[in-house]
Amino acid sequence: MAGNSIGHTFKLTTFGESHGEAIGGILDGAPSNFKLDLEAVQLELDRRKPGQSDIVTQRKESDTVRFLSGIFEGKTTGSPIGFVIENENQKSKDYSHIKDVYRPSHADLTYDKKYGHRDYRGGGRSSARETASRVVAGAIAKQFLQHLGVTINAFVSQVGTIKLAGDLTKIALPKQENDVRCPDSKVAQEMIAYIKAIRKEGDTVGGVVFARITGAPMGLGAPVFDKLHADLGKAMLSINAVKGFEYGSGFSGVEMKGSQHNDIIQPDGTTLTNNSGGIQGGISNGEPIYFRVAFKPVATIMQDQDSVNSKMEKVNVEGKGRHDPCVVPRAVPIVEAMAALTIFDHYLRNKMTQI
Amino acid sequence: MAGNSIGHTFKLTTFGESHGEAIGGILDGAPSNFKLDLEAVQLELDRRKPGQSDIVTQRKESDTVRFLSGIFEGKTTGSPIGFVIENENQKSKDYSHIKDVYRPSHADLTYDKKYGHRDYRGGGRSSARETASRVVAGAIAKQFLQHLGVTINAFVSQVGTIKLAGDLTKIALPKQENDVRCPDSKVAQEMIAYIKAIRKEGDTVGGVVFARITGAPMGLGAPVFDKLHADLGKAMLSINAVKGFEYGSGFSGVEMKGSQHNDIIQPDGTTLTNNSGGIQGGISNGEPIYFRVAFKPVATIMQDQDSVNSKMEKVNVEGKGRHDPCVVPRAVPIVEAMAALTIFDHYLRNKMTQI
Amino acid sequence: MAGNSIGHTFKLTTFGESHGEAIGGILDGAPSNFKLDLEAVQLELDRRKPGQSDIVTQRKESDTVRFLSGIFEGKTTGSPIGFVIENENQKSKDYSHIKDVYRPSHADLTYDKKYGHRDYRGGGRSSARETASRVVAGAIAKQFLQHLGVTINAFVSQVGTIKLAGDLTKIALPKQENDVRCPDSKVAQEMIAYIKAIRKEGDTVGGVVFARITGAPMGLGAPVFDKLHADLGKAMLSINAVKGFEYGSGFSGVEMKGSQHNDIIQPDGTTLTNNSGGIQGGISNGEPIYFRVAFKPVATIMQDQDSVNSKMEKVNVEGKGRHDPCVVPRAVPIVEAMAALTIFDHYLRNKMTQI
Amino acid sequence: MAGNSIGHTFKLTTFGESHGEAIGGILDGAPSNFKLDLEAVQLELDRRKPGQSDIVTQRKESDTVRFLSGIFEGKTTGSPIGFVIENENQKSKDYSHIKDVYRPSHADLTYDKKYGHRDYRGGGRSSARETASRVVAGAIAKQFLQHLGVTINAFVSQVGTIKLAGDLTKIALPKQENDVRCPDSKVAQEMIAYIKAIRKEGDTVGGVVFARITGAPMGLGAPVFDKLHADLGKAMLSINAVKGFEYGSGFSGVEMKGSQHNDIIQPDGTTLTNNSGGIQGGISNGEPIYFRVAFKPVATIMQDQDSVNSKMEKVNVEGKGRHDPCVVPRAVPIVEAMAALTIFDHYLRNKMTQI
Repeated sequence: MAGNSIGHTFKLTTFGESHGEAIGGILDGAPSNFKLDLEAVQLELDRRKPGQSDIVTQRKESDTVRFLSGIFEGKTTGSPIGFVIENENQKSKDYSHIKDVYRPSHADLTYDKKYGHRDYRGGGRSSARETASRVVAGAIAKQFLQHLGVTINAFVSQVGTIKLAGDLTKIALPKQENDVRCPDSKVAQEMIAYIKAIRKEGDTVGGVVFARITGAPMGLGAPVFDKLHADLGKAMLSINAVKGFEYGSGFSGVEMKGSQHNDIIQPDGTTLTNNSGGIQGGISNGEPIYFRVAFKPVATIMQDQDSVNSKMEKVNVEGKGRHDPCVVPRAVPIVEAMAALTIFDHYLRNKMTQI
Repeated sequence: MAGNSIGHTFKLTTFGESHGEAIGGILDGAPSNFKLDLEAVQLELDRRKPGQSDIVTQRKESDTVRFLSGIFEGKTTGSPIGFVIENENQKSKDYSHIKDVYRPSHADLTYDKKYGHRDYRGGGRSSARETASRVVAGAIAKQFLQHLGVTINAFVSQVGTIKLAGDLTKIALPKQENDVRCPDSKVAQEMIAYIKAIRKEGDTVGGVVFARITGAPMGLGAPVFDKLHADLGKAMLSINAVKGFEYGSGFSGVEMKGSQHNDIIQPDGTTLTNNSGGIQGGISNGEPIYFRVAFKPVATIMQDQDSVNSKMEKVNVEGKGRHDPCVVPRAVPIVEAMAALTIFDHYLRNKMTQI
Repeated sequence: MAGNSIGHTFKLTTFGESHGEAIGGILDGAPSNFKLDLEAVQLELDRRKPGQSDIVTQRKESDTVRFLSGIFEGKTTGSPIGFVIENENQKSKDYSHIKDVYRPSHADLTYDKKYGHRDYRGGGRSSARETASRVVAGAIAKQFLQHLGVTINAFVSQVGTIKLAGDLTKIALPKQENDVRCPDSKVAQEMIAYIKAIRKEGDTVGGVVFARITGAPMGLGAPVFDKLHADLGKAMLSINAVKGFEYGSGFSGVEMKGSQHNDIIQPDGTTLTNNSGGIQGGISNGEPIYFRVAFKPVATIMQDQDSVNSKMEKVNVEGKGRHDPCVVPRAVPIVEAMAALTIFDHYLRNKMTQI
Repeated sequence: MAGNSIGHTFKLTTFGESHGEAIGGILDGAPSNFKLDLEAVQLELDRRKPGQSDIVTQRKESDTVRFLSGIFEGKTTGSPIGFVIENENQKSKDYSHIKDVYRPSHADLTYDKKYGHRDYRGGGRSSARETASRVVAGAIAKQFLQHLGVTINAFVSQVGTIKLAGDLTKIALPKQENDVRCPDSKVAQEMIAYIKAIRKEGDTVGGVVFARITGAPMGLGAPVFDKLHADLGKAMLSINAVKGFEYGSGFSGVEMKGSQHNDIIQPDGTTLTNNSGGIQGGISNGEPIYFRVAFKPVATIMQDQDSVNSKMEKVNVEGKGRHDPCVVPRAVPIVEAMAALTIFDHYLRNKMTQI
């Protein structure tokens, strides 16, 4: 009800503010007797952490996850998996410059009016730091899915106006991600150069993350309100800074005719085209699932801006601190995590379809 | 769990197949002691029904809603509102041509594999007929919202490649909708002509519905997973044929810089621009909420197509029956209904934020 | 949220007031491709209906269920099962004697204060008539359970001070239920005579329903809050007029020592005794599950009583109408239905325990 | 779904095994801007902890709660309250005597069969240690309720066959609890002596906790499945070792006639008697709410017992360790906590009844 949980059968609940004691979560519904690779979880978390390259925020946070329950002798027990990531140095910071200020396009004003009391330190609960907990849970979901033969990959397909061309559903992925997490190294260089230039201006820019899921069995998704793409869409739209979601042909499908758009089914069950994005009637059809997620430019810029304070008086907001000039490189593991949570939740739900 | 419910506090559960006995639903959580205009509900349902103009399907269904509970002496009682819409002539149809056939880009194959047993008559549960129940519930939600000063309007902004230009957040809406439900009568004429031409080809085409919500108070939405736009997105993506959702600056915001995209807050609490689409940090900020919903071309076309039957043998699918050449005109009241359900659910949830 | 649903995976939502248009429900989550015996559902409903013997209310209601969806060619489709039971003659009654009166130990006062508007006709939503919808859904659950080898039987073990003696977990059940649904025909005769005498006084009396479930596999129930007996307890306590629930040794177990109470496990997995009532740590252990449900005397008596009206003025409440002098005979199928819904919900949930 | 959460609007999810790293939980839905007394929470936890008197287990656990989020500058923020209680010395214990043994009337066998993998250390997730997390959350709920004028008190009314006589709904409570938490000091002495004698035998005994709630406003509870007493019952039955729940007249009400049992309403809205236990039609009527909870004798006894090992071979289970001879004294704060969580959840839910 308060919006801190996602999933029905495989359910993640998170807690924590960016500068409180710690963040963390409870992952409930993980099947038992499954060997987990906890180092792989930490590696996934490292893909999201600040300071990993020179085009992301230079804040230093080690982001080490500690598991408190639900795992015994290396295997899941079926009990809820509780975990925490301590916040470091959270007490030493000075927040006087934002304490009474509502920053433009941040959640400061809306939180204060909704709750009547706000943790103003670094965005509090509205900070994207919360997504670290999602990456932990998503990394666990990925291991279950891997066991089932399902692979989830996301990458950056656009930064500002620089776009990756061609059929992204089939683009080869390098073994090693580059700093911007765009699989085409030439385009990646352009993106990196652009992000650096933007950062020099004290500005920020948006981007698109493209995700594809292969090996998902037919039958995932529920027909009406919990269509697979509806749940994927909600999961993606719940990530900070996301403004749009489309799957399969998406917004461009609008301009097509039915005779072009229809995916002809072959005797082997595959389809000639995949405008459906691997989902028909809300249910996976065994083809690759793919979708695009639009991220706006980060609201925190290194420029002065007009705004108001908590008395609704005009003030100047200083641009300071260490922030991402473009959020999409670090968003890639978050998109993958949310996809993994959604797909595995529907995998478990599908087990109840037939007696 | 089985995906037939939406909403937390104001919750709709629907039932029914396109050619079963009846469709209907239970709307649970409607506040009590509220005078409902049941004629207004029927009028809203009439906006969705087949046969209302010559650019939609010519099927004849009267779609009359009958309320069974939850309303007494014209007012809500706080008990669940049960309602049914009888399906007419559902027994007389001949379905032999689709009984064993999996139509392209339909849910036939995925349903059959998921459930092992399928109501093949007219799509069964996967038919968009189910959305009539949503319109009933949404029309009730609209009345609660109207009482609170919240207005929801949707219209068609694109059909195929024909687009409405200008700032759609401010476009004037005519008192009377035209057949295609596009507020600009000149563009509407183009759209109508195009749809007629497409129909003549036995083909179909996609479109976009634009929605805007004014008067929503600040504070709606929950911070993390149930961000207001995440729940709106899921609600829209759950509508048949939807391929994408974006709000505020959406996918075009990707190309903007932070310094352009940020909405500067004024001392009166409004913002200079509204790239946020009325939602900041997942919570409404009092500005108009607006979003776009992409609909693919209808899968049922009046042309022969290749496909497979339930034995996975190659077959020809005949194009026959009476179907919409373009779904967006009839989708307008459905988009409004889903928006109303989502907004009012969050209105009720927000009542619990402070003691 | 509004309390009209029960179950997680196999979920029933009901609607309807005693004297509205109709009552009914939506059963969501029924596994697909399962042949249902709809006549058996109606027979179960007949066990609950008024007028079936001379110790229950003499009201005439045919209680015929009509299925609207979710069943095709005799088998479940996995879509929600919508059903209605029309209320007969609901418009002809005269309620002037209770319209503005709050009857003692009824929900009249609490509903009016909670909702600000009340359907005063025959109790409205608080009427036990709502339980007919539960019996429909429970009868479907029973068929799934029967397929799995699980049997649920309830019977009357006490009326007023007349109690069935001996080990009720092993008492033989007759093929044909008698009017009071007590398996010992001698005790049944006493109970029937007592109920008739009570009715002659214009009074009512309470009773106990004993239920036992055999064949339930090991592993049903979730460890912490959704312990199998906690969900059974809630399901029973949700039935009108229930005041208490105990399982296994129950309240009498309080007086035992651990060395007596412990159920010694045998090499074949059974236990020497069954004080645990078939549930250990909230999870079924394969032994018979059994519990007792206490029903208070019906609040509607055929005697004059003091009370207040809606202006909180003293009034006399007339005893009139046709009501049950003792609720337990008709409660037996309701107890069975709620047990079946709970057990089958946990059966489905248990499918997700291991990958 | 996995049963580790309780509550709809005010929702507690717990994690943790008795001998894992830590236990804890997330309390979601706490209203914002409310000053919390965190010392009072710790004091409540101290009422539950081991070693507090010589009639409870002599294990030493400090049970110190650490709050990680949701509280800022002493006040709730509306964000989820995450908390942990570290388990001390959890690694030093020797569990070889129970590793492969299924103890009688414990959850060892059922967990192992359900999950295929079990944390055998001290009961793991099935240990009553989990209830410490409930006491933390319940202590927070109590503070909200105190602010609203609602008081919750529980006490021990029976140990073995020693019962507190008289009208327990009106018994005076001493300022200071005695070791057994029975308000009558003479009966308390008997109980204490009995528990000591039982412990000397290496045995255990059951008991009853009586709870009463005063000051609850009219209108709490939802009519059908979430009746206030149904949710209270489930909450109580979810506590380890509970075998029964009754409210108001309970099982003894069975023997009463309607004319005796009915609570006559007075012009001031109170009732002459309170056989209803403060709840009519599932909704609080403003009278004191009271109920009784039956606890079985603790399964761990200091005597040798027959049982089986994980190969289902006959074995002898040694009686060793430090355990409670009678659980009810320490159960009192747990019962209060679960009552507080349930009542406050319904308080919040009731805010949505009228617009």
